[in-house]
Amino acid sequence: MGNIEQVAVLGSTGSIGRQTLEVINALPQRLRIIGLAAGGNRELLARQISQFQPRFVYFRDKKSRLANAEYTFLSLEEMASHPEVDIVVMATSGRWGLQPTLAAAKAGKKIALANKESLVMAGGIIVTEARRNGAKILPIDSEHSAIWQCLEGERQKPSRIILTASGGPFYHYSKAKLDKVTVEQALKHPSWRMGRKVTIDSATLMNKGLEVIEAHWLFDLPFDNINVLIHPQSIIHSMVEFSDGSVKAQLGYPDMRLPIQYALSYPERLPNPQLPKLNWEAIKELNFESPDPDRFPCLRLAGEAGRRGGTYPAVLCGADEVAVELFLSERIKFTDIARLVEQALAEHKAISHPTLDEILAADSWAREEVRRLVSGDKR
Amino acid sequence: MGNIEQVAVLGSTGSIGRQTLEVINALPQRLRIIGLAAGGNRELLARQISQFQPRFVYFRDKKSRLANAEYTFLSLEEMASHPEVDIVVMATSGRWGLQPTLAAAKAGKKIALANKESLVMAGGIIVTEARRNGAKILPIDSEHSAIWQCLEGERQKPSRIILTASGGPFYHYSKAKLDKVTVEQALKHPSWRMGRKVTIDSATLMNKGLEVIEAHWLFDLPFDNINVLIHPQSIIHSMVEFSDGSVKAQLGYPDMRLPIQYALSYPERLPNPQLPKLNWEAIKELNFESPDPDRFPCLRLAGEAGRRGGTYPAVLCGADEVAVELFLSERIKFTDIARLVEQALAEHKAISHPTLDEILAADSWAREEVRRLVSGDKR
Repeated sequence: MGNIEQVAVLGSTGSIGRQTLEVINALPQRLRIIGLAAGGNRELLARQISQFQPRFVYFRDKKSRLANAEYTFLSLEEMASHPEVDIVVMATSGRWGLQPTLAAAKAGKKIALANKESLVMAGGIIVTEARRNGAKILPIDSEHSAIWQCLEGERQKPSRIILTASGGPFYHYSKAKLDKVTVEQALKHPSWRMGRKVTIDSATLMNKGLEVIEAHWLFDLPFDNINVLIHPQSIIHSMVEFSDGSVKAQLGYPDMRLPIQYALSYPERLPNPQLPKLNWEAIKELNFESPDPDRFPCLRLAGEAGRRGGTYPAVLCGADEVAVELFLSERIKFTDIARLVEQALAEHKAISHPTLDEILAADSWAREEVRRLVSGDKR
Repeated sequence: MGNIEQVAVLGSTGSIGRQTLEVINALPQRLRIIGLAAGGNRELLARQISQFQPRFVYFRDKKSRLANAEYTFLSLEEMASHPEVDIVVMATSGRWGLQPTLAAAKAGKKIALANKESLVMAGGIIVTEARRNGAKILPIDSEHSAIWQCLEGERQKPSRIILTASGGPFYHYSKAKLDKVTVEQALKHPSWRMGRKVTIDSATLMNKGLEVIEAHWLFDLPFDNINVLIHPQSIIHSMVEFSDGSVKAQLGYPDMRLPIQYALSYPERLPNPQLPKLNWEAIKELNFESPDPDRFPCLRLAGEAGRRGGTYPAVLCGADEVAVELFLSERIKFTDIARLVEQALAEHKAISHPTLDEILAADSWAREEVRRLVSGDKR
């Protein structure tokens, strides 16, 4: 307590990055920005630099000077492993997160991890390096944060994890109706406001599938002990079950600032009046149902890729990312996303214990493969 | 681990006592019965003595030799404070629990506490003695066990406790309909199987009121920060909210063996295949609503008695116990229970920092007062 921790936010202009800065801004006695890194949004990054005066900056186009401020330009890996950085917030999306996350793991940092691909694609490598070097992976998505909070103080592993899923906007659509889903419909998530890619992944349940693989690595549990439960209100963020049958759940309104703050203030909880409190006068009921793998095959595909391991999860991620892009640009149907991912997985020649380069190569192969499959479709 | 702890079960023939013996029987590598104590059920106690061969026995009628076994007869206080007893399970009901609980607190025991009256009537005295002598109070009702489980590993007090209540069988009855409730109807609890007194207290919500007072002492929270929420399915056993807005809940089917085992195995959780696991395929929804203090005044009366403190909670308990007896013997109406408790509280001349004797005297006064009020009614 009392110590100010220096935080580098990688991906500061995205949805999680912006909310991270909001949380840090509200806790000046605890946290200070030391580094900011972003990809494409140069205006916003410039404003963030003016506001937070970071010592380190990364921007994709390194030649352009931003915000007329004094800073040192570092690569993502340099920033993630810099000795003066205490906490690395990995809020970049996609494969770009892997190498900085690995660098932070090797440097023994606290890694507040929002980047899904790091653990999904390279969980084995990252978890091993983190353990070896004393790095701590602190999840900042709502489901894994919920599980982490429920496990705090428990002396044994849970017998089961139950990841809740809102089910997305189409959970009760028939297969025929799913075929006709438009981009506009898919971008309207019922309970969470997120980036476009995550919103589509939520609608296909791929997002939940990726979270199952993340949970496997974060909590060291076999896939059989990680279940998914549809819970449309997104109030229960996830649950854990213990060997005595007791279940613990973490609840709250859907607001990413809570898991972000929990990761950044851990092991303490800090009061934050901006964070909303559950109003039980308004919450009349919470609903639950089992996921339907037939209408939402992405959940099954992710589970299979996770169990097979090796380069399969990288193919899952790469294929899904390109398929989602193709759907967003209206070149394929909503239901094609799962079909293309499944085809890529089926055609993949996997490597069992891949290096990071082999993982990234598998991801690239999958991206090409999906593009090839789609242009093949058109011929 | 590996150490066998010696358990004395006070109130072994009641509902909680019998389930405690079931749990202990399933964990022979951890727990051994050293003492059994019971009030009226001599046949059952004799069978329990034959089965568990306790070294110490208490029975209300000390002259009669039970089960033709070798044992030493001890008083409840002697058993609760005996040097060879590691854990005292306080499963007696009513005021008879106070003195043994206090003896166990003074002797620095682990006290697995099911007796509500101990903390409701004498919370200040017992909590102070427990702290002074290193005794640990381990709650074994489902609500306080839920809160305790949710607080495990947390570094700060919760900002709020939310005790869930099934609402009992009459939660949606009008006042007029509540007036006509029969004993038979009142003894049918929708989700829990319990003793008669607790079942009626659940139907009036007095039980929840007593639990609010217990929570105040167990978790050292002001009454304003202890809320009650009606949750008819009794799956969420209670919740805690922290300063950051995060809420944790403990869930399970209504089965007292879980909180009993948690208290007896704490800080570990032990696998127990007899304990049922939540089946989310079957749980379609969980419902919530605010309690109505107008139709269920016992909740309000308990809150007021708790806030006022002194001998008021003893009057609450004593008056309620006699009123429930009178209802069970069909001498008063269901709605008379609250009315009589309210009258007794209104007429009580309270003592602010009472001794245990003064607490027991206030309880006796309240019992007499309710009987007097009822015979007055009849005149």
